[in-house]
Amino acid sequence: MNTLTKFQNFDEVPVKQIAPGFFCKLVHTENNTINFLEVKAGSQLPNHSHPHEQSSFILDGQFEMTVNGESKVLVANDFVVIPGGVEHGGKAITDCKLIDVFSPVREDYR
Amino acid sequence: MNTLTKFQNFDEVPVKQIAPGFFCKLVHTENNTINFLEVKAGSQLPNHSHPHEQSSFILDGQFEMTVNGESKVLVANDFVVIPGGVEHGGKAITDCKLIDVFSPVREDYR
Repeated sequence: MNTLTKFQNFDEVPVKQIAPGFFCKLVHTENNTINFLEVKAGSQLPNHSHPHEQSSFILDGQFEMTVNGESKVLVANDFVVIPGGVEHGGKAITDCKLIDVFSPVREDYR
Repeated sequence: MNTLTKFQNFDEVPVKQIAPGFFCKLVHTENNTINFLEVKAGSQLPNHSHPHEQSSFILDGQFEMTVNGESKVLVANDFVVIPGGVEHGGKAITDCKLIDVFSPVREDYR
């Protein structure tokens, strides 16, 4: 994956498990990392923060997100924009699908 | 829509027609504009360029994308990363759904 213009298909993108139960297809552009992820029910990420802005969109299932101490179970069509440096975490209540957009690039996910 | 952290739902996001047949739900963050769009069959955008990087992901339907003079009909699971300044355009072959991620923010879409 690089920033050259080319037509691509997700079948060519390897799955990366960034945390137990978090299975990711990561697209790194010049400015962003775009993460199409599937999370197994019960899997969770403890509260953490990073300098990257993060926008999380729920496509399917139920994902409990905690941002700045406030928790909500998000379902399809819900989303949240998390500025850089803000503490957040989450837990999959059911198997679920999400899209996370990080800016700038998550070099740690390359 | 602003960059404050809050839980949101797409039902609250107004639909904006940015070109004939291109119906968009736009999420502006600090760094990006993320566009969930539906395009009516036959609608097209002529070749153009902008300084913003653009990543386009096809969710449903068929969308013929032209980038740098090369055309391809994209279907679900296809995507393309278009660096800023590169000429591109597209035409919906069928009704289709896409996600475009622009960086930086598309001030012209606010």
